[in-house]
Amino acid sequence: MNILTRPILEFNLNNLLDNYNVLAKIASPATPAAVVKDDSYGVGSAIVVQALYEKANCRNFFIAHAVEGEKLASLAPNAKFFVLQGIGDDSIALFKKIPQLVPVISSPQMLKFWQDNAISGVKPVIQVETGLNRLGFREDELKKLTPQEREMFCLVMSHLACGDEKDHFMNAHQIETFEYIKKTYFPKTPASLSASDGVFLGENFHQDLVRLGAALYGINTAPYRPNQMKNVVTVKAPVLQIAHLPKGDFVGYSATYRASSDRKIAIVSIGYGDGLPRSLSNIGKVFFKKDGKIIETRIIGRVSMDNIICDVTNVDGLQCGDIAYLADDFYTLDDVALDAGTISYEIMSRLGKNPRFDKRYI
Amino acid sequence: MNILTRPILEFNLNNLLDNYNVLAKIASPATPAAVVKDDSYGVGSAIVVQALYEKANCRNFFIAHAVEGEKLASLAPNAKFFVLQGIGDDSIALFKKIPQLVPVISSPQMLKFWQDNAISGVKPVIQVETGLNRLGFREDELKKLTPQEREMFCLVMSHLACGDEKDHFMNAHQIETFEYIKKTYFPKTPASLSASDGVFLGENFHQDLVRLGAALYGINTAPYRPNQMKNVVTVKAPVLQIAHLPKGDFVGYSATYRASSDRKIAIVSIGYGDGLPRSLSNIGKVFFKKDGKIIETRIIGRVSMDNIICDVTNVDGLQCGDIAYLADDFYTLDDVALDAGTISYEIMSRLGKNPRFDKRYI
Repeated sequence: MNILTRPILEFNLNNLLDNYNVLAKIASPATPAAVVKDDSYGVGSAIVVQALYEKANCRNFFIAHAVEGEKLASLAPNAKFFVLQGIGDDSIALFKKIPQLVPVISSPQMLKFWQDNAISGVKPVIQVETGLNRLGFREDELKKLTPQEREMFCLVMSHLACGDEKDHFMNAHQIETFEYIKKTYFPKTPASLSASDGVFLGENFHQDLVRLGAALYGINTAPYRPNQMKNVVTVKAPVLQIAHLPKGDFVGYSATYRASSDRKIAIVSIGYGDGLPRSLSNIGKVFFKKDGKIIETRIIGRVSMDNIICDVTNVDGLQCGDIAYLADDFYTLDDVALDAGTISYEIMSRLGKNPRFDKRYI
Repeated sequence: MNILTRPILEFNLNNLLDNYNVLAKIASPATPAAVVKDDSYGVGSAIVVQALYEKANCRNFFIAHAVEGEKLASLAPNAKFFVLQGIGDDSIALFKKIPQLVPVISSPQMLKFWQDNAISGVKPVIQVETGLNRLGFREDELKKLTPQEREMFCLVMSHLACGDEKDHFMNAHQIETFEYIKKTYFPKTPASLSASDGVFLGENFHQDLVRLGAALYGINTAPYRPNQMKNVVTVKAPVLQIAHLPKGDFVGYSATYRASSDRKIAIVSIGYGDGLPRSLSNIGKVFFKKDGKIIETRIIGRVSMDNIICDVTNVDGLQCGDIAYLADDFYTLDDVALDAGTISYEIMSRLGKNPRFDKRYI
């Protein structure tokens, strides 16, 4: 028996590389780019960028903010980092310092800013709006671009709203709009429309460059069929204590669980402070491996900042220091998200940013 | 007009110090200790510890994991850091290296581990279970302690389950149980029962030491009456783009919002990747300050990783680069949490861990 206190995050980089190669092959001959924003959805951008750059020859990365690229650029010296949130007074200094950073320009105001502050040798990306109604030039704004401005961009991009629903009417609407905008305003410019979800929607969605994000990290971006991606993230935590819960006793904050019979409970060293959603209170599943079997248990009471309490009445021989599985290949973050009432993207982006996790890379 | 891209987190350390002093005064003559686990609920432990140590003479800090104390101990050389998750094989090296770390022992197994690995000069804390049914010795385990073991601890502590509900029956039950355990097993040991919420429950809850956490950071831990704490956290983000939303158009992922009339929208540079709960989709409130007035607007469509979309039809003269307020003293994180279906603790613990935030301390 070991006494352990820290939660553990395991990332399988081999599976991540396999996912990248599978996605790149489906999208071929489109250029594959990796979306490593938000610390690579929590996996850790430095390690992900290095692996993709060195082992998969990836040369195009997407980040949200220039500051995210500050430490990454030198790890991938011949790569470009496209900055989705664009450029402004609060990031221009970084763009000047690191010419690998390429801004994505999404509005006439930002274009004006770029023209007043252009960095020689850098051709920016233009984002156009095709139905998501988020960032991007609207058509009345595109009409005002001069012929010279229409040829100043290295890439014209847009983003799908419903790419994870195969037959959603928005997909047809967006590709039609995108093709019209390309033909009308940017006939000579390479184009990108799809993130991971669009890769599975067919060849016309691939365009010249695909932006591989969620699926890279194992998320099922085509939930209308079983996941074709390999699992990347395993979330584990040790049992700190095992105790008897007498019939009638309450559990956790606000006493939201009451034992209807004598139970055995385990206090497990992970909580919402580690990124586990608090909405898993009284709902979340926790697994233990015993004698080659996977045993399912349930979180009882509220998830607290550092701990959860599990009903382990049905787990024989459990000891302090035994490992609880919160997510793994048999119960993925997509499954956790379903229980938590959100999407795995949100959970991933919260995990791993806390120094308390013992992070391990395979 | 500025073009800005980064979200901004502002922390008011003066208000934090004021909160500490108010709480310490209410709890006097009990010793005040500060709970700085989880990076001080996201505020930033290094800065919080330094401020409390130097300006408020705080000498007792609580953290969850030993690893959290690694960088803090040298900032507060004469302080102790009590480690709530205790000590084990995965943290013993740190305890040996930093004698300011004091483990909280919560189970007989962990006590055995401590006795096998005791660090000279360090007297640990014992945690006892009084109704939360989380970490702590149960009475059958206390009975087995030898007379010598009963006197080996520097502090006996427990934790309230329902301290934020003034008249909850659990409060009376827990204080009664705690007094009984103290008298029976630890008559000579200093005691601690209350976190911030217990401070407001009356003198008998104060014991010898109070653990000031949530209220320090401005959270209302006595929600049965108006908040007596000052606001510590302000969450802001710039408007990246303003656009026309035609009647009938959809907004955001999965097209969950459709405009029933022509609207004006703003794309604001903050999302769940920054810690804003995705459950604010189509619900969350966003504020703008114009001509000395605070104007309320609503998030429409889904919160995405880096952006939200707001209906700003009623905000005249809005420009790119204008600042949206997600939380401030007029709409605190407690209010955000109510809209998001969670508690402000969870939201706080997610904000600020992302390097993308421009963090400012007042």
